[in-house]
This record gives sequence, structure tokens and C-alpha cells, in this order.
Amino acid sequence: MTAAQETPAGPFPAHVENAGAGGRVVLVCEHASNTIPAAWGDLGLTEAQRHAHIAWDPGALGLARGLMRRLDAVLVHAPVSRLVYDCNRAPDMAGAMPARSEVHDIPGNQSIGPAERHRRTQAIYLPFHDALHGCIAGRIALGLAPVMVTIHSFTPVYFDQPRAVEFGVIHDHDPTLARAVVEVARERTGLRTELNAPYSAADDVTHSLRLHATPYALQNVMLEIRNDLIATPAAEEAMAEILAPVLTEALARISLRVKAG
Amino acid sequence: MTAAQETPAGPFPAHVENAGAGGRVVLVCEHASNTIPAAWGDLGLTEAQRHAHIAWDPGALGLARGLMRRLDAVLVHAPVSRLVYDCNRAPDMAGAMPARSEVHDIPGNQSIGPAERHRRTQAIYLPFHDALHGCIAGRIALGLAPVMVTIHSFTPVYFDQPRAVEFGVIHDHDPTLARAVVEVARERTGLRTELNAPYSAADDVTHSLRLHATPYALQNVMLEIRNDLIATPAAEEAMAEILAPVLTEALARISLRVKAG
Repeated sequence: MTAAQETPAGPFPAHVENAGAGGRVVLVCEHASNTIPAAWGDLGLTEAQRHAHIAWDPGALGLARGLMRRLDAVLVHAPVSRLVYDCNRAPDMAGAMPARSEVHDIPGNQSIGPAERHRRTQAIYLPFHDALHGCIAGRIALGLAPVMVTIHSFTPVYFDQPRAVEFGVIHDHDPTLARAVVEVARERTGLRTELNAPYSAADDVTHSLRLHATPYALQNVMLEIRNDLIATPAAEEAMAEILAPVLTEALARISLRVKAG
Repeated sequence: MTAAQETPAGPFPAHVENAGAGGRVVLVCEHASNTIPAAWGDLGLTEAQRHAHIAWDPGALGLARGLMRRLDAVLVHAPVSRLVYDCNRAPDMAGAMPARSEVHDIPGNQSIGPAERHRRTQAIYLPFHDALHGCIAGRIALGLAPVMVTIHSFTPVYFDQPRAVEFGVIHDHDPTLARAVVEVARERTGLRTELNAPYSAADDVTHSLRLHATPYALQNVMLEIRNDLIATPAAEEAMAEILAPVLTEALARISLRVKAG
């Protein structure tokens, strides 16, 4: 990988869609893309691996765009595969530039020294989080009371084990919105919905929320949808049609409780 | 203030000194400068007010530079007065662009609408925190285990009340380093040292720590020195000579306790 690592790389700015949105929700999709920039070659992976869930969250970007349109939300998404840099991980976490993902070794990530970790942090992680911070802080300044919602998908079979959960709702420090989403989803959808499944903050999956929502005491939640349920554009749209009113109702219930409280 | 507010403003990038430092400490000085950029005129203040503690933390930058040299630390400091934007406050906090500070009304901040709050956030707050985040995350990627130390000074008389405390040591979520600094300072210096005085995190004074240290679980502390003790360059140097070994010893004790842990 020496030659590839000498190729100039980036920076790769985050994509921001509907930046002037009137709604409160800021959607975030750290695993939107399976793109591996030329500087990192193919990381030693087969084409099948580069299209598998280890490289990105299939369906997440399409679902996020469906939610964006229905909620008049902003959408911030990463332009590079999580296998080059997982923007939902701090630079010292093993998962930021994983040497192995599920059952797959990642050859291009086997011997990453400090200089290469620093290069990827500068090229991918910082441009993503600078853009997201700008969006969040700008909307706070405008008095828009932003709500941060990260959109992910998970594989239905992990280490050969099928997963029954269909909709996982994960929180960082403040569980308020996550609990309201679970409550509404169980009442109004047929989705098998679980709190803090298939992962939780203890698995270091709430890094983006910790950086941008927790310090400002913003309402926030991480949504995980099983990727077989959003495997086509039509399925992504159908899921957005189900989940947009769940988010709206969950936020409305929180507001009512604050007023009543 | 209408004409001034139409003047193009910034962005005003943070100053970063000794960026390639070999030590672990990242020093931060949000209130280093009393500069009011031309776009904001004089904010309606007298010259005396523009040089008083309400505009900046007198002595803090000189002390921070003295610590930087002794600890081989990085130093990130803000180029604009806290009265235009206080970089240690979120954009929706009253203190970010204060209408009043201690006994002084700030005429230029009396009627700030959302557009002006947004303009100042983009021009001053975001460039400062992007630079600081880049410094912190880059050093995490390099494996340098950064320690974040913010340097402030406070006025000896506040609302006509003299303050006896000379050295205030304040923490956010994690008190580990703050407690060690208090312990060492009481043993080895003659400074009247207090934990969480003259303010604490409950007063919203730990915003920078919350943004950059707490999400990465970095060791961190906010240091407040009474400004009559650092009123000349010689006094700043003398205080740096006292406090640099306090920080070094406090960090050494924490490391020993972790190993013994």
C-alpha cells in the first residue's frame, strides 16, 4: 500500500443537502458511501467486499433523503467509505480505520502508523465534523433548536447469527428522544423495535452525537434500520414514509411533556 | 450599529502557536484578546471599558505562553474580544454576545437578532473551534494523548466584592485532573487554591472542555488566575514558573494512579 499512501488525498468535504431547511431535524449519515478514493486504491478488497455492509450502510442515504424531504430537514453525509475512515469513530478507536470488520480482514488497514492515521483524520474525519458542527452551531445561533438524528442500517445476519430486531433506537447521554421514538414506533408501526439494539453507546457508536448534540444539550437519537428492509429505492421511500411521522410525533410528545413538566 | 453590522466581518481564524509541540498539553485561551474588529465599531464602549476584564482576561495570554514554553505545549487562542463573541459559550447562551457584563451595559449587543448571532458564530466561534478541534483530533490520531488546559483570569473585585481565591481550578464531567492540580498546588505553592471557584461548570464556563475534551475522554481542566497576580509580563512569567511544575506533577500523579489502579 506504500505507493497508494503517497498519493495526495483530499480533503473530502462532507455533502450537505437542504442546508437552509426550515425544520428542526439535522439528519446525519456517516456511512452513506462506499467510495474508496484513489489515494487508498481498493484497500486490498474484492469488489463484493467493497459493496458489502462492511464498507457502508446500504439504504441509509436513500432513507435519509426520504426523511429529509418529509421533515424539511438538513442532511449531512460522508463521501468516503467507513473502511477508509469511519466518521462515527474517534481517531484513536480501532474502528476508525478497521483492520478487520466482521469476518473480513481489511488488507489496506493492517499496518497503519501514526502519520497515516493523521492523514486520514485530516482528509476525511475533520472536514466531515467541521461541516456538521457548522450546520448545528449555525442553526443554534438562528434559534432553530436543532434535533440531531443519525441514520444507519445494519446487516440482518452478523457472524452467522440472524438478527430479529428491525428498528434499533440508540441514545447517548440523554435517552429522552430515543425512548419517545421507541414508544411511538411500537404503537404506530409493525416494526420490531428495540432500545439500544443491535448496539448501544457502550459500543462507542454514538461518537457523532457526543461531539455535536450532547455538548449543546440538543435532543438527539441514532436510528438503525435492518438493511433488508431498505434494499431498493422503493423500500427506502416506504420506510421514510413510516418513520417520518414517528419522529414528528415523538418530538411533539417531548414538547408536550416539557410544557406539562 | 446598523452601518457597522453591514461591514463584511471575518472569518477570524484562531491563532495556533507551537503547533508541532512534543508535549501532551494543549493550552486554550478563549479570552486572550480585547480586539474588536472594525465590523463591530467600538460596540458603544469607552476606551476604559474596552481594556477592562469584561473585554478579555488580562494576563491570560502571557501566562499561557509562559506555560507553552515550559511544557512544550500547543497554544490555541482567540483573536477577538469576548464581548463580540465569547468562544467559551454556545451560540444560544446569553453570555456568547452579552448585553451586559458585570456592571456594564454593552450598547452594541443590546438588540442582536438571529442573523447577527449567526454572522458572529460563523465569523468567530466556528473558526476558533474548528482550529481547536483539528489540533485535538490530529494529536489524538498521532497517539499523543492530548491533555486540554484552558487558561483564564478573573477580576479581584466583582460587583464590589473582593475575591480571596487566587487560583481557581474548574472541571467539567471528569474531575480527575482538576483534583490533582488542587492537591499539588496546595502542597507546593503559596496560592490560595480552590476547586470550582470562582465559578463552576454549572455556570456554563466549561463549554470548550465539553466540545473537545469530554467527547474524547481526554484529561482536562480549566485554570483561573486572579488577574492582579499576572498584571505585568514579569508576573506572567513568574506565575508560569509556578504553575508549569504543578501541571507536570498533577499529570504524573494521575498516571501513577492509573498504573496502580
